[in-house]
Amino acid sequence: MKKRIVVALGGNAILTKDPSAESQQQALRQTAEKLAPLVEQGNELIISHGNGPQVGNLLLQQSAADSVENPALPLDTCVAMTQGSIGYWLQQALRDALEQRGIKKDVITLLTQVVVSKDDPAFNHPTKPVGPFLTEAEKNQRSGQDIYVEDSGRGWRKVVPSPKPIRVTEAPLVDKLVDLGVLTIATGGGGIPVVEEDGVVTGIEAVIDKDFASERLAEQINADLLIILTAVDHVYINFNQPNQEKIQEVSVEELKQYIEEDHFAPGSMLPKVEAAIKFAEHSNRTKKAIITSLDNVEDIFTKQVGTHVY
Amino acid sequence: MKKRIVVALGGNAILTKDPSAESQQQALRQTAEKLAPLVEQGNELIISHGNGPQVGNLLLQQSAADSVENPALPLDTCVAMTQGSIGYWLQQALRDALEQRGIKKDVITLLTQVVVSKDDPAFNHPTKPVGPFLTEAEKNQRSGQDIYVEDSGRGWRKVVPSPKPIRVTEAPLVDKLVDLGVLTIATGGGGIPVVEEDGVVTGIEAVIDKDFASERLAEQINADLLIILTAVDHVYINFNQPNQEKIQEVSVEELKQYIEEDHFAPGSMLPKVEAAIKFAEHSNRTKKAIITSLDNVEDIFTKQVGTHVY
Repeated sequence: MKKRIVVALGGNAILTKDPSAESQQQALRQTAEKLAPLVEQGNELIISHGNGPQVGNLLLQQSAADSVENPALPLDTCVAMTQGSIGYWLQQALRDALEQRGIKKDVITLLTQVVVSKDDPAFNHPTKPVGPFLTEAEKNQRSGQDIYVEDSGRGWRKVVPSPKPIRVTEAPLVDKLVDLGVLTIATGGGGIPVVEEDGVVTGIEAVIDKDFASERLAEQINADLLIILTAVDHVYINFNQPNQEKIQEVSVEELKQYIEEDHFAPGSMLPKVEAAIKFAEHSNRTKKAIITSLDNVEDIFTKQVGTHVY
Repeated sequence: MKKRIVVALGGNAILTKDPSAESQQQALRQTAEKLAPLVEQGNELIISHGNGPQVGNLLLQQSAADSVENPALPLDTCVAMTQGSIGYWLQQALRDALEQRGIKKDVITLLTQVVVSKDDPAFNHPTKPVGPFLTEAEKNQRSGQDIYVEDSGRGWRKVVPSPKPIRVTEAPLVDKLVDLGVLTIATGGGGIPVVEEDGVVTGIEAVIDKDFASERLAEQINADLLIILTAVDHVYINFNQPNQEKIQEVSVEELKQYIEEDHFAPGSMLPKVEAAIKFAEHSNRTKKAIITSLDNVEDIFTKQVGTHVY
């Protein structure tokens, strides 16, 4: 039975080691090969992706050339630019992977803005490091209200807020595009962060977690399933310890208990687990979220793979 | 009567002097104000735009930070990134301008690839300068088959081919989106240049003229009208000379005659005039193209403004 599935790609689906465009495109071609069977099985796919290393490198490039004639662009614009680069690579890879299976399908990338609240508590506690490492002197030279933190002896980095997504502004259109049979890439890098005031939308300096943004999109377009892909096959409790234990099926309650017991690393498995819980709860548990690795994706409806959250 | 109109924005619609994001966004908000009346009049708008200064600055930024950890990205990817930045700014500006007029309309940016032929003669004669100015020594250090030209005493610059657009790959979808009532931004920067071989699409180092690409899109989506916006109100013969004369209505034959008489500057008015001719010819002259300035746009159906090519 045809399902509407939002797939959130992890960083390792795009960039393994070599940050050249060629190598990232190659990685995405492999990723596309692994996603194509889901389309072949008749499902409607909507794909989102991270952009951490890419926007990081872009910020460094902007900073390296920063001048009156070539000023560094703000973070919201840089996110838009990585939606451009990664979306282009991914749509090309997906279209070719489908074409080779004899599937004619429009594959597109939609620039996607995500509304956050100015009152989100994250704006009082910026936590996400972005941009270049600075010496203490460089940091002190920078004017303005930016906040910097010392990062493990490697220097000072600016930190920006990571507010929760309220609404993917382009979601209604994603919905229509999926109805038209279009494979849509959306909410790249967690979406371009914007705030809305009196009907006017403007960019804001922030980074939105891509798993939360994907979850929000999945809710808005009434997806049947949210698949969050990462480097490991399952969610584990006591991860990387002798008594580590993989989770196959788990209820929202159990998972919340594990969170309280600090089983999941913040900024890594924790947001994925929280997004999975949110999706299951939103649907009154009629729908589930699956956290697994890219290698497992094609078997998701035929074998017991990944961690299923009900 | 409702018309389907492709509007190609000139560089001055985005960037006047100050290349900061804030200033470009401000310019685009003014541009959006001038385009909004066309939507208010009930027309279907599809908007394309140039990216010359933006992709130029991005190439300089990429070059400034170029390293193993942060390699400069190729030109096709950089074009995709400027579709991201400019598209984001423009869709936000348009959506707000419409909202303020009480018009609820989806405004989206579609990453757009444009197929060119590997056999295009342009690939034997690269002419378009891109990227940083180099000293002769720097130029000689660069390996590979790149071609460099000396640019008016300012240094050496790489030149890339400017092949003719064959097909906008996303045009069928632009068509569907327009039918859905969506205001679509597409073919930014002339589109991401790609070649197609055995059904596989790959990026190529080239720059596609945005007026030619917009014309190709207008043909593919069966537009009623192509509007090419530029800094001047009309096309002129003997431009900037004492006997300069503005053209208001002109036939394809007359215009071809003027081209032969060298009235139009290559890389400036010439491609606009050629694109206008191509659109009029393609429709067997049942449709026209208009070349004018942004200030004239809202009067296009009520007053005699701009140069009309039949």
